[in-house]
Amino acid sequence: MKKSVGAKTIVYPTPVFIVGSYSKDGRPNVMTAAWGGICCSSPPCVAVSLRKATYTYGNIMAHKAFTISIPSEAYAMEADYFGLVSGEKEDKFAASGLTPVKSDLVNAPYVKEFPLVLECKVLHTLEIGLHTQFVGEIMDVKADEAVLGRKGLPDIEAVRPFLYAPETRGYYRIGSFIGKAFSIGRGI
Amino acid sequence: MKKSVGAKTIVYPTPVFIVGSYSKDGRPNVMTAAWGGICCSSPPCVAVSLRKATYTYGNIMAHKAFTISIPSEAYAMEADYFGLVSGEKEDKFAASGLTPVKSDLVNAPYVKEFPLVLECKVLHTLEIGLHTQFVGEIMDVKADEAVLGRKGLPDIEAVRPFLYAPETRGYYRIGSFIGKAFSIGRGI
Repeated sequence: MKKSVGAKTIVYPTPVFIVGSYSKDGRPNVMTAAWGGICCSSPPCVAVSLRKATYTYGNIMAHKAFTISIPSEAYAMEADYFGLVSGEKEDKFAASGLTPVKSDLVNAPYVKEFPLVLECKVLHTLEIGLHTQFVGEIMDVKADEAVLGRKGLPDIEAVRPFLYAPETRGYYRIGSFIGKAFSIGRGI
Repeated sequence: MKKSVGAKTIVYPTPVFIVGSYSKDGRPNVMTAAWGGICCSSPPCVAVSLRKATYTYGNIMAHKAFTISIPSEAYAMEADYFGLVSGEKEDKFAASGLTPVKSDLVNAPYVKEFPLVLECKVLHTLEIGLHTQFVGEIMDVKADEAVLGRKGLPDIEAVRPFLYAPETRGYYRIGSFIGKAFSIGRGI
């Protein structure tokens, strides 16, 4: 018998997306978002939901572009900081010592020190409630050469991303390999 | 210097959502989806993207409701199987030996053996491309009592969900605790 927990935003895992954008006057900013995920294979798209009150919301509305940088677990402190303060009041790059790099495909900056980056152009904007969802077409994925594995794809065990557990508000590492998708189910 | 990997659907982590729905004639079905995530805090909403070709797509369009069951790692084989075959051709519950339970809030079934369940009513349908995104309002979250921890919330370390790495197509366990969100960043 399952117990009701209430109408809460609980799923596991949620990602730790670092959303990069430029302000109207060209200053680079980043914020942390866990409300998002891939939303289409063709065109390749990723969704991220932000509150209108965020500085990043206005930036994305102005430039119709953003990046998503995936931090490795070594940068958990910086990733959490990016979600604690507003870019309107603080230069988060300067405070954290991390480096903004302008995407060469879209008008948005990414975090140089993070191993995996998506460059996105806004395709759709969906008003849902407290959050507005931006659907971005993924124009390119860029990765540090050190994390590229078999077939030139980013290896999750080298990227060392981490995840967020909502409500209990914890960050967790990625654990060990279980098995191949589209494969282990053939045992049924 | 980052290297281009191409315009691919790569972010880490993506979830393993088991989407439950009834067919037009009332048969329970489940399918596996990794393209999704929370998309709004108020109302609490979760998004999941499906191809029109799936059996589940027609089911959700018919009933405007679905569930998301989060499998624990012990059920990785069953979760993968749910993504390998179509419910039009196979009774996936019968084949896997798992049990459909009718949600008491929405017209959709969930998987009894999976520890965490979201009951959702469709709020929005967004055509993006190959995938259609369903935004579901989370009417309730239900969990096995055995996985409830502090404050009556599901404990990710008891749920033991797992994650999917796209393109390299691997399933991975959840690893160890890193730190508290909205907290560890204060060290910056």
